[in-house]
This record gives sequence, structure tokens and C-alpha cells, in this order.
Amino acid sequence: MLARTDRTTLRQRSHRGSYDEADIYAILDEAPACTVAFVEDGRPVGIPTAHWRIGDRLYVHGGMGSRLGRAMAAGAELCVTVLLVDGLVLGRSAMHHSMNYRSVVLFGRAEEVTDPAAKEAALAALIEKLSPGRYPHVRPPTAKELAITRVLSLTIAEGAAKARSGPPVDDAGDMDRPVWAGVLPLSLARGEPVADPQLAEGVTLARP
Amino acid sequence: MLARTDRTTLRQRSHRGSYDEADIYAILDEAPACTVAFVEDGRPVGIPTAHWRIGDRLYVHGGMGSRLGRAMAAGAELCVTVLLVDGLVLGRSAMHHSMNYRSVVLFGRAEEVTDPAAKEAALAALIEKLSPGRYPHVRPPTAKELAITRVLSLTIAEGAAKARSGPPVDDAGDMDRPVWAGVLPLSLARGEPVADPQLAEGVTLARP
Repeated sequence: MLARTDRTTLRQRSHRGSYDEADIYAILDEAPACTVAFVEDGRPVGIPTAHWRIGDRLYVHGGMGSRLGRAMAAGAELCVTVLLVDGLVLGRSAMHHSMNYRSVVLFGRAEEVTDPAAKEAALAALIEKLSPGRYPHVRPPTAKELAITRVLSLTIAEGAAKARSGPPVDDAGDMDRPVWAGVLPLSLARGEPVADPQLAEGVTLARP
Repeated sequence: MLARTDRTTLRQRSHRGSYDEADIYAILDEAPACTVAFVEDGRPVGIPTAHWRIGDRLYVHGGMGSRLGRAMAAGAELCVTVLLVDGLVLGRSAMHHSMNYRSVVLFGRAEEVTDPAAKEAALAALIEKLSPGRYPHVRPPTAKELAITRVLSLTIAEGAAKARSGPPVDDAGDMDRPVWAGVLPLSLARGEPVADPQLAEGVTLARP
């Protein structure tokens, strides 16, 4: 259970919140990408980026020249936001429309992974997140490739998950209104794999 | 075409960027939600929230007590980040794994919509985004409901879109590696509508 802090104490609909690692980790693991926000010249900047998790640490990576990578490597305060939209909630009244979702907001500072073996292990975990079992089959990074890639990690220590699920919650006086009410589910669905046009003959996808 | 500013000039893979309103609007309209980042006590905070667009303005809403709503209403500098993940790109080498995506990053300050009629019109546009043609059928907001809801809008003037699409771009020396390469497409897909268990008998969904 993560400790609550002033900035992770939910002020709106706090019954929808959770500080439980299991809830937080499940959302982080399902989402392919997050927004990392930092402050630059006193103003907020939020950059979308892929993320992954190893134990109680969240990882991101990027090129050496990226604004986000430089800010993170310099120890900037960060806010990581992850959102999974699960559905559109259509109520009988305008104000009871909502969204079903699961989100995580984390705060902290990142540390740069500089040891080449640790860097490769972290990147391997990203590829395993994208496609489990894949890493042993791809060409591993060269020393030069590792050198031009920044890998950063943040301890998952200060943050909270928040979620809404279920049907709309309408006012009693609106229940007989002759308008459809319910949820239009949304999910990040996988389509049919699209092979690289240059794929060598006879190579098949073991598992997507 | 939005004017480039220092903070919207893309530093990484700038060929993937666009300042064209049509590109930016299309991404904003397709995504159900964004992250709005602001600075609180010198530190970044990124909050996920639903958004919608009317012309050249982006809208969000929230309760009067919300941290985000208060910061926005107070004229805080904001960064709005929208991300659509289109696929996982599996390369033949570890470093050529990537993601297909479309994103928008906007900067600016919000203005609060205070006129009740303008507020209702803005909220109607949100409901029309969720389900086109729906607004005339729901109960409109009361004066009290409007009074406890904050609606804010931001001119879409400083920002950029960025996107990646297509197969992995592998090194020539890796092309014969016997590992599947290509794209695992992802999209935010709609499932079968789930009617509210308390839906009045005989009410059907005209169009989801």
C-alpha cells in the first residue's frame, strides 16, 4: 500500500481511488504508454512516451537529445499519468454522462540507468511487455546503441490509482425518461498482425 | 497552420511532426480523453480528463472543487497531451522496436466559460462527441447543475501533432534474421453497448 501524501490525496470522488500496489501495477502493465510531465522554465510540459515496469520501478527511455530525457536525467520532479478508457457512460440527463476508466498518477524523480548490462536488461523487459517471449529472438543492442539511448526509472512510491466502472447513476426523477442509458464499452484492442513487407520468407509469428 | 514556438519546435524526429490544424483537430476529436498538466507549488501535476473541441477551442470540465479546475480557472499555464496508440512495432533488433501513434501536445491558458447558455452549449457538444445526435434526448442541465460545474476552454494556438506509422525500420544487416517483424495494430475499439439494468422497458439505442 503506498503512503498517502498531500499531493496524492484524492479530493474528488475519493471512493474511486486506491493506493494498493496491485491496482496500480495492473493499470501500468496494461497501458502501453503514459504522459510524463515536468516543469520547464516554470511552465508544464507533458510528453507521451512508452513505459514499462520491473518490480516497484517504472521505466521510460528515449534519445539522448530529447527534452524529456534531459529533464529526467537532471533529476526534475515528474508526474506520470496513465489512463485506460473503458467506456462512455450515457446517462439520462446531460450531467450524468461520464466515462469508465482506470488511471494512475505517480510523482517522483527518475534515476538514469547507466550500467550497460542493467540498461539492456531494462530494454529487454520493455520488449517482453510488447510481446512476451520475444527478447531472445531479436538482435540485442550493441554497445553503441546502448550508449545513445537513455533509460530512466522512477520508484513507484508516491501515487494513486483511480477508476470508475458500471452504469450511469441518474437522478430518481429522470429514470423514466425514454432515452437509452448505459455504457458504450471501449478497449484498446489488438488487430491482425501486419507483417513487415520485407519479412524474410518462411518466418512466422510464434505468438503476437 | 499553427505558428511554431520554441516549446513546440520538435527536437526529436521532427519529420513526424505537423502544425496543421486538420491533423491536430483529427487527433483531438478521435481521442476521448487527454492529460492536462499544470504546475503546483513548483512541481508538475498531470490529470487525465475528458476533452472535446468546438472550432479552434479545446474544452474540459470538472467539479468546482477539483485541483485541475481551480488551477485552470486561476489562469495557470497548461500543457494538454493527447495520445492515440495505433500499434506495437516489432523490429528484428531490440533497438528498432517502436510504437505507431498519433499525439498532440498543446500549450496555453484556459478561460472559464461562465455564461450559463454558453456553458450548456459547450456541455451539449461533449455529449454530441460521445454519441452524435443524443443531446436533444437527454434532460438538459438545471441552473444548479450548471452552477456546480466548471467548463474551461483553451484556444488551440500553440501546439503540434506528432505521429509514427508503418513497419519497423531495421538495419540492413538484420534483415535476414529469422524473427517475425511487423506491426501489432492497436485501436480503441467499441464493444457491444451495455444497457443500464434499470433501463425503462422498450427503450432502445437509436445509434451508439
